[in-house]
Amino acid sequence: MGISELHKTAGEWLRGAGPESDIVISSRVRLARNVEGFPFIPQLTPEKRTELESLLRDRILETSFPRRMLYLNLKDLDPVDRLLLVERHLISREHMNTEGDRGVAFSEQEMVCIMTNEEDHLRLQVIRSGFQVEDTWNEIDQIDNLLEKGIRYSFSSQFGYLTSCPTNVGTGMRVSVMLHLPALVLTKQIEKVYHAVAKVNLSVRGLFGEGTQASGDFYQISNQVTLGVAETDLVREFRGIVPKIIEYERRVRDELTKDDKGRLEDRVWRAYGQLKNARQISSDETIEHLSLVRMGVNLGLLNSLDMSVVNELFIFTQPGHLQKSTGKIMKDKDRDIARANFIRSRLETK
Amino acid sequence: MGISELHKTAGEWLRGAGPESDIVISSRVRLARNVEGFPFIPQLTPEKRTELESLLRDRILETSFPRRMLYLNLKDLDPVDRLLLVERHLISREHMNTEGDRGVAFSEQEMVCIMTNEEDHLRLQVIRSGFQVEDTWNEIDQIDNLLEKGIRYSFSSQFGYLTSCPTNVGTGMRVSVMLHLPALVLTKQIEKVYHAVAKVNLSVRGLFGEGTQASGDFYQISNQVTLGVAETDLVREFRGIVPKIIEYERRVRDELTKDDKGRLEDRVWRAYGQLKNARQISSDETIEHLSLVRMGVNLGLLNSLDMSVVNELFIFTQPGHLQKSTGKIMKDKDRDIARANFIRSRLETK
Repeated sequence: MGISELHKTAGEWLRGAGPESDIVISSRVRLARNVEGFPFIPQLTPEKRTELESLLRDRILETSFPRRMLYLNLKDLDPVDRLLLVERHLISREHMNTEGDRGVAFSEQEMVCIMTNEEDHLRLQVIRSGFQVEDTWNEIDQIDNLLEKGIRYSFSSQFGYLTSCPTNVGTGMRVSVMLHLPALVLTKQIEKVYHAVAKVNLSVRGLFGEGTQASGDFYQISNQVTLGVAETDLVREFRGIVPKIIEYERRVRDELTKDDKGRLEDRVWRAYGQLKNARQISSDETIEHLSLVRMGVNLGLLNSLDMSVVNELFIFTQPGHLQKSTGKIMKDKDRDIARANFIRSRLETK
Repeated sequence: MGISELHKTAGEWLRGAGPESDIVISSRVRLARNVEGFPFIPQLTPEKRTELESLLRDRILETSFPRRMLYLNLKDLDPVDRLLLVERHLISREHMNTEGDRGVAFSEQEMVCIMTNEEDHLRLQVIRSGFQVEDTWNEIDQIDNLLEKGIRYSFSSQFGYLTSCPTNVGTGMRVSVMLHLPALVLTKQIEKVYHAVAKVNLSVRGLFGEGTQASGDFYQISNQVTLGVAETDLVREFRGIVPKIIEYERRVRDELTKDDKGRLEDRVWRAYGQLKNARQISSDETIEHLSLVRMGVNLGLLNSLDMSVVNELFIFTQPGHLQKSTGKIMKDKDRDIARANFIRSRLETK
C-alpha cells in the first residue's frame, strides 16, 4: 500500500455496501485529541511543531492497531497527492493547505485515519459505508483507547477533552452521516429535513458542492454539541433521526415511481447518456448526473451498472484523482476533457 | 407498393445521397396546372369536383410515365394515412385537411407526385436528394409534357399558365431547395443568408418547425415570382445562389472544427447520447438533436452512424409515422414515449 497506488482503488466506504446503502453513503466519527505538555496548534513554534509531529508519528506506528497503518508526512508529498487525500476524505482541506510538519496515518481500505497537527494535535477518524454509527463509534473508541496507552491526552475532569477550538471541548467528537437524498431534492422537500434535524440539535449541510452550495443531492448530518453529552447518547440520537430521513426519502422515491415512472426513467437514462457521451464535462455536472444515475440503479431503473462503479466515479472524477491517474497537472478545460474520457472508459459496456 | 407499407421505407430524397448532400437535403420543383373547361377549385360544386377528380385520375393512370404510379383518393384514407403522406412531403397539409374528392399519385421511391384538386386542379412535384435543380426541372418538364397529351391546360398566351391564386400565374412553378445549416445557426450568422437570398428575389423559411418557427436548422429557399420569368432562368438563379450558401456553411463548419473541435464534438455526442437514452422525447427536441448528429456525421465526428438512418429519423419520428408503425392512435405523451423507443431501436449498435 502506498500513495502512488491510492487513486486506483477506493476505500471501504465507497463500496456502496453497508446497511441502508441506497440512501446512506457513509457513517463517520472523528475525535479531537491533544497531548498534555504541548500548547495547542496555534501557539506552537515551528520547532515544537516538528517535535510533536515526530512524537505522534512514533506513537502511532508503535501502537498495535487491529488494522495496519501507513503514515505520511504531508510535507513530503506533492500538491496532487495532498489533494488526492482530501478527495478521499482522509485529510481536511485545511490540513492540505497549512504549512509545517503535519501528517496522516490511515489503514488499508481507509476505514481508520489519524491526522497529526491539524486543528488539534490529533484528529482520529473512522468511516464506514452505509448506516453504522454504532459500530463506527465502537471502533474509534477502541482506536482512541489503544492510542491513549502511549499518549497522555489533555483532559479536564470538569470539561472533558480539551481542544484548540472551544466548540469541540468535552467529547471532542463529531458524528457525521452522509445521505443521498435526490428524491427529496427533486420534489423540493429537502427543507423539511433541515427542520427535523434542527429540532434535535444536529445540523445539515450539502456535500460535494463548491464552497457552501450543496450539489449532487448529498447531505451530511452532524452534531454541533460536544459538551455535556455522552458519546453513546449522541450515537443514540443519530439512530433516532436518520432512519426517519431514510424512510422519508424512500417514500418519496416510491411516490415518484408510482406517479410517473416514465418521467423518472427518462431523467435517469438521460443523465446516464450525458455521462456516456460527453467529451468534456465539469465536476459539478458530473455529480449532478451521477446522483440521478445512483438513484436509478437503486430503484432498479438502470440495471446494467454496478453501484461501486457509480460510487467510485464521484471520487475518481475529482481534480486530484484525475491528475494522478493521467500523471499530468491540468488546467480546468483539460481536466474536463480528461474527466469525460475517464467516465466513458468506466461506463464502457463490457 | 401500397399505403400500408409506406411508413417502413423512405423516399429517394431521404437517402442522403445526391450532390452536396452534406448540406442540401433535397431539390424540389412543383408546377401548378388547371384543366380548361372546369372552374378553379373554390368555384367547383361538389359534383363537378367529383367529376374532375375522376377525370384526372383516369388521365394520370392512362399516361405512360417513366415511373410506375400509385393513385389514392384521400377520402378513402384514414386520418393517420393522410398525415403520413404530409410527413413524406407527398401532399400538403391543406390537401389533408380539405374535404371532398381529391387525390394523389406518386411513383415508387416517391420522386414524382401529382396532387389532384388541391389549390389547383393539378399540382405536379418532383423531388430529389441533394442539389440537383436542373435534373429535377428536366424531369418535371417531361412529366408535364406527358400529362398534357391527355389534358388541355388552362393557358393564356399573354400570362402563361392560369392558376387559382394569382401568385402562381405564369410558369406555375415553384423551385425549393432544402438546406441544413446548423453551423450558421450555431454561430448566429443565419441572418446573412436571409439578406443574400432576398437580394435575388428568392425567399427563405425554416422547416420542420411548429407553425412558422424554424427548428432543427433546416431552411427552404424558394422563388416567389412566377410571372415573366422563364423556367430555365429561375433554375439558373438557384444554381447561382445555392452554391454560395453551401460554401458559406462549409466555411463556418471548418472554422468551428478548427477553433474548438472538442466543444463541437462534445455537443454532437451529447445530442447523440440524448437520442440513444431518452425514454420520452418531443418532436422538436428530436429534430434539434438529429440536426447536430447529422452535422457530426458529415464532419466525421461521429463515424458509427449511417446518414440514411439519421435522415429517416427526421421523418419516421413524426406523429403520423409513429402511429402507423405502432398501429395505434396516440396522444402527445404516449407519442413521446413511442418516439423515444423508436429512436433507440434505430440507433441500437449492431
